[in-house]
Formats: sequence, C-alpha cells, structure tokens
Amino acid sequence: MPQAAGKPSFGKIALVGKLGSPEIAASLRELVAFLKQRGCETFLEKETASESGERGLDYAAIGGKADLAVVIGGDGTLLAAARNLVLHRVPVVGVNLGRVGFMTDIGHRDMQDGIAAILEGKYKVEERTLLDAEILRGKESMLRTLALNEAVITKGAQGRLIEFELSLDGEFVYRLRADGVIVATPTGSTAYALSAQGPILHPAVPAFALVPLAPHTLSARPVSVSDKSVIEIHLKHAQEARAHFDGLALANLQDGDRIVLKRSSDTVRFVHPPGYKYFATLREKLGWSEAPTKPE
Amino acid sequence: MPQAAGKPSFGKIALVGKLGSPEIAASLRELVAFLKQRGCETFLEKETASESGERGLDYAAIGGKADLAVVIGGDGTLLAAARNLVLHRVPVVGVNLGRVGFMTDIGHRDMQDGIAAILEGKYKVEERTLLDAEILRGKESMLRTLALNEAVITKGAQGRLIEFELSLDGEFVYRLRADGVIVATPTGSTAYALSAQGPILHPAVPAFALVPLAPHTLSARPVSVSDKSVIEIHLKHAQEARAHFDGLALANLQDGDRIVLKRSSDTVRFVHPPGYKYFATLREKLGWSEAPTKPE
Amino acid sequence: MPQAAGKPSFGKIALVGKLGSPEIAASLRELVAFLKQRGCETFLEKETASESGERGLDYAAIGGKADLAVVIGGDGTLLAAARNLVLHRVPVVGVNLGRVGFMTDIGHRDMQDGIAAILEGKYKVEERTLLDAEILRGKESMLRTLALNEAVITKGAQGRLIEFELSLDGEFVYRLRADGVIVATPTGSTAYALSAQGPILHPAVPAFALVPLAPHTLSARPVSVSDKSVIEIHLKHAQEARAHFDGLALANLQDGDRIVLKRSSDTVRFVHPPGYKYFATLREKLGWSEAPTKPE
Amino acid sequence: MPQAAGKPSFGKIALVGKLGSPEIAASLRELVAFLKQRGCETFLEKETASESGERGLDYAAIGGKADLAVVIGGDGTLLAAARNLVLHRVPVVGVNLGRVGFMTDIGHRDMQDGIAAILEGKYKVEERTLLDAEILRGKESMLRTLALNEAVITKGAQGRLIEFELSLDGEFVYRLRADGVIVATPTGSTAYALSAQGPILHPAVPAFALVPLAPHTLSARPVSVSDKSVIEIHLKHAQEARAHFDGLALANLQDGDRIVLKRSSDTVRFVHPPGYKYFATLREKLGWSEAPTKPE
Repeated sequence: MPQAAGKPSFGKIALVGKLGSPEIAASLRELVAFLKQRGCETFLEKETASESGERGLDYAAIGGKADLAVVIGGDGTLLAAARNLVLHRVPVVGVNLGRVGFMTDIGHRDMQDGIAAILEGKYKVEERTLLDAEILRGKESMLRTLALNEAVITKGAQGRLIEFELSLDGEFVYRLRADGVIVATPTGSTAYALSAQGPILHPAVPAFALVPLAPHTLSARPVSVSDKSVIEIHLKHAQEARAHFDGLALANLQDGDRIVLKRSSDTVRFVHPPGYKYFATLREKLGWSEAPTKPE
Repeated sequence: MPQAAGKPSFGKIALVGKLGSPEIAASLRELVAFLKQRGCETFLEKETASESGERGLDYAAIGGKADLAVVIGGDGTLLAAARNLVLHRVPVVGVNLGRVGFMTDIGHRDMQDGIAAILEGKYKVEERTLLDAEILRGKESMLRTLALNEAVITKGAQGRLIEFELSLDGEFVYRLRADGVIVATPTGSTAYALSAQGPILHPAVPAFALVPLAPHTLSARPVSVSDKSVIEIHLKHAQEARAHFDGLALANLQDGDRIVLKRSSDTVRFVHPPGYKYFATLREKLGWSEAPTKPE
Repeated sequence: MPQAAGKPSFGKIALVGKLGSPEIAASLRELVAFLKQRGCETFLEKETASESGERGLDYAAIGGKADLAVVIGGDGTLLAAARNLVLHRVPVVGVNLGRVGFMTDIGHRDMQDGIAAILEGKYKVEERTLLDAEILRGKESMLRTLALNEAVITKGAQGRLIEFELSLDGEFVYRLRADGVIVATPTGSTAYALSAQGPILHPAVPAFALVPLAPHTLSARPVSVSDKSVIEIHLKHAQEARAHFDGLALANLQDGDRIVLKRSSDTVRFVHPPGYKYFATLREKLGWSEAPTKPE
Repeated sequence: MPQAAGKPSFGKIALVGKLGSPEIAASLRELVAFLKQRGCETFLEKETASESGERGLDYAAIGGKADLAVVIGGDGTLLAAARNLVLHRVPVVGVNLGRVGFMTDIGHRDMQDGIAAILEGKYKVEERTLLDAEILRGKESMLRTLALNEAVITKGAQGRLIEFELSLDGEFVYRLRADGVIVATPTGSTAYALSAQGPILHPAVPAFALVPLAPHTLSARPVSVSDKSVIEIHLKHAQEARAHFDGLALANLQDGDRIVLKRSSDTVRFVHPPGYKYFATLREKLGWSEAPTKPE
C-alpha cells in the first residue's frame, strides 16, 4: 500500500505517553526536542503533561489542532488514545519502549528514524475498522460507544452462565449458554479473542469474529461474519452480566437487554513507517519465530 | 464392577428433591409410597419437605440415620445433596425427570424399576474423588471446602486478567495470565471444564485436570496430574479474583492468596442400578449419537 | 437477497443423480415427469442416465443447453456436479433424499414445491467463491484446477510431517511443520476445515481460511485472509506430500513445489427456493438445535 | 524421587549416536574416553560404530551386557534406541547436542558432569509406560509391537476419512469418522498427540489419551482412560488406512481389522541426573518461558 504522491505531511504533532513511567517521560522529552528541531509544533496530552507538572491539551483540543498523534507506551496506551482521537480523525503512530506490540510497532531504538521517515512522507496509513456498539433496554439507549478491539458480553461475579440469542441482520443465528461471547474486529482478533480460540482475521478482511467463551454447546464454533451486517445479542438470562468494550468502557446488563453491534462509519488510522509488515509482528508476538529460509 | 455378595442393603432412605417443581413434589410422593410398600423407612430432607408444608430432617440428621439418599432433580440438585452428605458417608442415587444427566442417570420412567433393583441388591457403587480445597492468606485459612466437580479461580467483574503461579508438590509448573484456571476432578471433567476445552477424564483415572481459561500464552494446554499430588495456585495479580467450588461455595481473593488443592480422603459414592454405562451417558449428553453397528 | 424483477426463468433443466441408488433413480423419474408437465425440457446427465440404461448428455453438452441443473443426492454429489458445471455457468440446486446438507438444502418431501417455486421465479441465487489452484514445479505447471470447498496439502502415507512456507501477496506469513494445511473457501469452512478447528466463514465474507493440520508449533492458529490475496505454499520438506482439491482432484507433490491459490473469476451459483436460511442449515447440521424463544 | 541406598551402579555402558553427524561422532569419542578414564567398560552400538568404520554390538548383544545405554542425539534417536532396549531392561539416558528434548534432557555442555553424577549414583530412575499394540485380522495376528509415544490409526493417501468403533474393556465408547485417532502414553502426550489438541498427561498419571484427528463429530473430545484398560479400535471403513507406532513401525490396515492396545508389562527406564524437572522441560519446549517470581 504505497501512498500516492501528495499525501498529507505532518506538522502539528500531539504526544501521548503511558502514565507513571520516568522512562517514558524521558522519551517524550527526547521526542519533543527532536520534533521541534524538525520544525514541528508539538502538544502534550493533558494527563501526559501533568506527569511532569506541565499543562497539556485535552483530546478535544488535540483533535482540533493536531494532524498526527505519537503515542509512547504499550498497545493499551495506544488503544485508549486511539479511541479518544477517532472522532477527530487524527491518525496515530505507536512507539513501544518494551517489546513491540501489535499496534505500537516502532521500537524505541527506531523511534527517531521511524518518526523522521514519517515526517518525510515515507509512511503508509492503515485504516482499521471499529465496532459501533449500543446497549438497548426496551427502547432506551443505555450506552453507545466504539470498540477498536472487541465487545465482550460476559457473566458476572457469581459465576453463573449467561444465556443469549444472537442474530445477524435479523436472522436468528444461535441461542447459547456460555460464560459470554466476544465480537472482535480484525484488530481485536489478535487480542482477547485469540486467547478464547478465536480465528485471526487479517485487517484486510471486512469481517467481525463471533467467539463464544466456554460455550455449553460443544459444537459451538467461532463464526466470522461480514462487517456490513448488524449483529444483535439479546440477553435471556443475564445474572449480573456485563459488557466490556476494549476492556475500557463497562456496563452492567440485565435480562432482556439488547446489544447492537455494527461497523462504525469512523475508522482508526494507524501510520506505519517503511518496513512495517503485519505478519512479521504476528510471528514476533505469537512466537512463530521460524525464519523463512534463504532463497534457493 | 459387580458387587460382592453380602453388600449392604438399604432400609432407611432419605429423599431430596429439586425445589420449586410441582412435578418433582408428585414424584417424591410416589416414591415415598413405593418405598413404604417395600418396607423402607423414609425421611424427607428439610427444605424438600417444607415445599409441601411438612417437616423434614437436616443433612446432619439424615447423615446419622439414612443408608441411602435418593435425589430427584438434575445434576445440580444431586451435586448439592452429595456435597452435604459426603462427610456422613451416605451413598446417593439420582433420578432425572427431564433428560438424564451425568450424575442423575435414572430416567423418570425407570424410577420404580431402578430403585426396586437397588433395594434388591442389584446395584453397583462407584466412588468419585473429591477435591479438598483451602484458601490461605498468609498463614490464615480463609476457607476450606470440598469440590466434587471443580475448583475455579477466575477474574472478577472488571474483566482484568489475573496472574498466578501454579505448582505441583512444590515444583513450579507455570506462571500464567488468563481469565482463570479450573482444577477439575474426573467427575467435573465433563462439566464446566469441558466447555473450556478441558480433556475428559474417565472416573477410573486417578487424576485432576488443570484447565486454563482463555490463557494469554497461546501454547498453554490442559495438563492432567496425579491425584496424589498437591496443587498450589499462588495469586500474583488478583484484581477482584474469585474462587468457586462446584459453582456453589464462593470466596473473594486478593493478591498473594494461595489456593491449595488435593484429593480428599472422603469420596462421593454413587449407586447405579443395573445397566449403567459411563460412555452411554457421555454419548447421550455430548451428542455422540452414533450407534455401534450390529455384530458382523 | 430478493431477486429483481426480470430475473431469468428456467426452461431447460439438466438432472444429475447420485449413482447406485434405486431410490434416487425413482426420484429422478418423478422429477422428470413433474418438469415435463410444467413444460420444461429435461436432460439427464450421462452417467446418471446410464444407471437406467438410457443415454444422457455429458457435462459439456449440458453446459451448452441447460439453464439450470437439479442435483439429487448428498453434498458430495452436488459438489462434483457444480465443479463440472462452473465453467458453463449453469446454476445448480440440490435435493437431498436423506438429511438436508449444507448445499443440498431442499428435502425430498419439499422437492416438488421447491422446484415449482423456483420455476415460478421465487428463488434467490447465491454466488459462492471458488479457489483457482495451480501446482508449479520450477516453471512448469503440473496441475491447474478449481476448488469450491478447499485445497488440502497433506503428508503422505509414511506419516512424516511436511514442512512448508506460506506467503500472502509475496509477504512471508509462516514456516510450519505440520500434518498439512487447508485453504478453505467460506463454503468449505463448514466442511473438512471445520473438523480441523477452522473458523466458520459466512458466505458473505470475502475471505479464505488458512487452517493448519496438527501443527508442530502450538501457537499456530487459523488465519483468515482476504480473497483478493494470492496465497503461495512452498514445500520445503514434502515426503510423499499430496494435494487434494475438494477431495476429488489429487496430485503428488515433491520438495520445492509451489501451490498458488487465488480467487477464481468464476463462481458457483446456488439456486435456493424461498425460505432458505444459512444459519438454519448450520444449526441443523452442527447440532445447534436450540430454538429461538417466542417473542416476549 | 530420591533413590534408596544400594541402587545399582553402572559399569558397562553402551553408546548409541544419531547417524550421519560428525559432531555426534566427536562427542561419542569424547564420551568413550571419559568413561574409560572412570573405569567403565564401553560398547558402541553396531550402526553407530559403523559410522567410524568400527565394529559394534547389535541391540541383543548390548542387552546381554550393558547396564546403561547413553544415547547422543535427539528425542527421535533416543526413542528408537529405547524401543530396541526395552525387552533387555537396559535403562537409557539421553544427551542432546542441540536444544534439550523431552527425553534427551542432558545438554551437551552438561554431558560430562551429568554422566559423572550418574556414575556416582546421583541419579533417579523414571519408569515410563509402554503401549502393547496388536493388529488382528479375524483371528490372525498381523503385527505385535510396543509404543513408547503413541499408536496412530490414520487415513491413507487418497485422503478419505476412516470410520471406526472404539471400545474400552468391551464397553462401546464411540463410533467416529475422522482422519484418524491417536492413543498416546503420558510420554507421547507431549509429542504428536499435543499437536492434535490432546491433553498433556504427567508421567505419574496411569492413563492413556484417546485423541481423534479431525473428527467429523464436532463434539468429539480427547478422553483419558485408565492404563489398566484394554482399548480396541475396530475399523469399519478403512480405505488405505495405516497404523503407525512411534512413527517407526508401520502397517497397512483393511476393513474389519482390530487394533488392541494395552499397557505393556515392560517399561522404559529413563535415568536422570540431579536437577531434572519434568515441568522445566515442558516450559522450555512449549515456550512457557515465564519464570517464577522471586520469593516475596
């Protein structure tokens, strides 16, 4: 996916860092200096700034000003920032001080080179699908939110199975008793859903994966469905059930609640420096370490 | 496992029924009449009796008097009764008014014939292993209980992974981040653990199955270990973690708690009428419906 | 997917039946009589005809004349007929005398009603993706074929693991030692690939599933990739390895062979009578028997 | 499992090496010199010896003379040697020049120290269960062999599913259509069976694991059964089916064949130097790399 000529260049850059880490604070300072030297205007995100006693901008202000956000931390930090920036259409790039993540694919050593390349226009933008999730109680909307990774409907603390019906564009799919169910985007297919035996969906596959958690029916299997579909989960027995979105937004559920999930019209845009390869990250993260052999 | 001559006959029989079902109340009355006709002394369990406004005996009193308990209901009802009777060494037999269960293997139609056969000594006794579970906080014992099916250590309502170390007879096995872990007996291997991709353990296998729930490590696998071993689970990060035993006893956990699991010196004794076959039940319950072919 | 007005009506109908079944021969005669009564022209497929001593048409001749093929038998019979008709663009409809199949979704009882409805234009056409598969040895093409269900690369009779590298649009994905690998279409995702723990892909998902068979790497997982991609499997150690396509076409492989898989520009077109529902078939076939509850 | 005083000491030592490796030939020479210096009598196994143009002893002769066999190579080399030595009751110890294996648990660097410790009596002996396997065609025995890892019944090269009935001590367990079935010992539970989603059985669990390969029935699950049981697999549809034992012995099967599997009265005895830990090897081999935390 090489970018066409004339693709946007980045001059106003927001910086977000994982909280509570002196190491990350140092990297942020280093990056600010580096960006200023290159003639960029920089803004620190508010909470990030407060760590060093400075004043920063909240996400709405960042959304109005920045044309790129650089996030230093792990996938969790990037996930939270991306959720906050999606409505403002600010693309994001992630730098990882530890092991490279699925989203934070620039390592610390490569930070200056990677960001420099991006400033010079040597980057590609990858759009990632989001779930638009709404919880309905009767006709009332209890919560509406976005999810970049997944929506999870799960049993509560007492440990009783929940029971629900799932339908696709109004067609009944199954009724299931289970610990819960995950609806994952391709981005989320390598996160929690993978631990629950869900399939990996390459980001170019326009689908969501429906992954049951410890289903009572042994022949239950993950199903991937078109991301043009509307998924509805209707809770039948919901003792203390809960919904989680990206492990961040949280809602209590009750019998009869409906969770409606569809593709959001918004997307998250990841900016990758040259050399980014989806499967290289996958191999690295999943321990598929075997190298290709030399050409014969 | 045919029984030797001289095996015990049953004259004093306790009756336990699932609560809240008029159908079961009728079956209980039918069974009481049937047993009295056969010259048996019968006792209703206290809560069971209260359903029809009668007075019954609590489990301690039943334990002191009865030589057999007949439970009418599903596997859940039998599980609860068996847990209450185990220390009193009263064997149990289960009658299921709906579909036959793993434990309640006499169908309603066969109730009188099955019980009659048992009274005539045509039965076999099957001993099932129990887990002896203790939760330790420092040197203090927070809970000690038995489990016929399984012990489950699981994340709490906020949905954050827990992290723990598991050891066997003091040998470190693994450190895992996961939704939780199940330690199942052979009896429990066809219950919750099976939904979580655990292996089926035939009751004659003297082992426990360690089954991780949605483990972060993709190469994590269920491990079966000798039931002579002591299993210790040491919680490292336990945000709101909980322990469940047979889905009944429940405890909140915190960082540093240790859950110690070993085979109990007590066992549950199931009484089966003639014709009971373990794998026939398994095929029935799991939809392994294919019949053997006729002899060739 | 209701059809637009003006969709084609079917007047020239080819009939194909599973061989060796007197029951199916009788159903074919019944269907011929029924279709003639409706004014349709009918042709028997050559091998099908030979069963009753008649002369029929080969698939090329059918392809030139028929505007619909009705196949009586199981999914295997329909699969073979559909492969033979795909290049002639003849749509197919399947009737099952036994249990309804994934593809043969009209039951015997509903045969006349279903076919009558289709003749009256009450049908929908569903296009199913095909794999275009080619085996290359050096620069030589050893085999080129289509697959509606799947391509399977598998170890040979001696039972030694094979080793291969898989790439997607030239990007290295993984090197794997395994019993083999399945590349399945959405249609094939409910066939052999499902037995090998592959994910179900709804037919509307434009993807292929890569499903390893007994992979030596425990963290190997099925991956779904866009059907716009070119998949290449490069055999490194191929002791007696073989390729199967839909369980029909077969080829011996050797070290260094490359199997190149992409979406065919042709599709199979299934004709469904009113009332066809993908998930109803799935529930029926997989034993997801639980019915939706009544509206509340 | 510390050994009692008076355990046997080893003075006559057979040496077996993986063929075709100059590196291993060098290690063998190093080991011969080391053992002679310690006053041991050494014998080279025949094929091992022929690599360096020397004359060696066949396994029968080794069985009559040696009281320990040291095998240098991988798990495959040790497996083959152990099978050859089991009837002669010669214990084996494995040295791995590459990555430590499940069976070859002494690394090359530790070879002299490990062997020295064993000569000084600082070792433990671990007995591993073997399968005694027999193939019956009618009343005729077609093959009788032992398996340390597993017996595999699998489909042939044409790729058609096989169908078989499995029984345990004469009790019908299931009828299955599948690519095949693995019957694994605890030793084999971490080999091929693990790739096929089988459960890990700790060597102290007296059980065999029945692991179906790509079963057509989606609710089919691995079952662990007592190693006191007799397992019988009766082939119903066996197109070109084959049996493999430890990936070494091989037999063609046909419809009606019965494969009878039970615990052998012989065992393989592995000798381990001090420090051997089963789970340490498992973590190393399966990538369960996370270390236990320091004591708190």
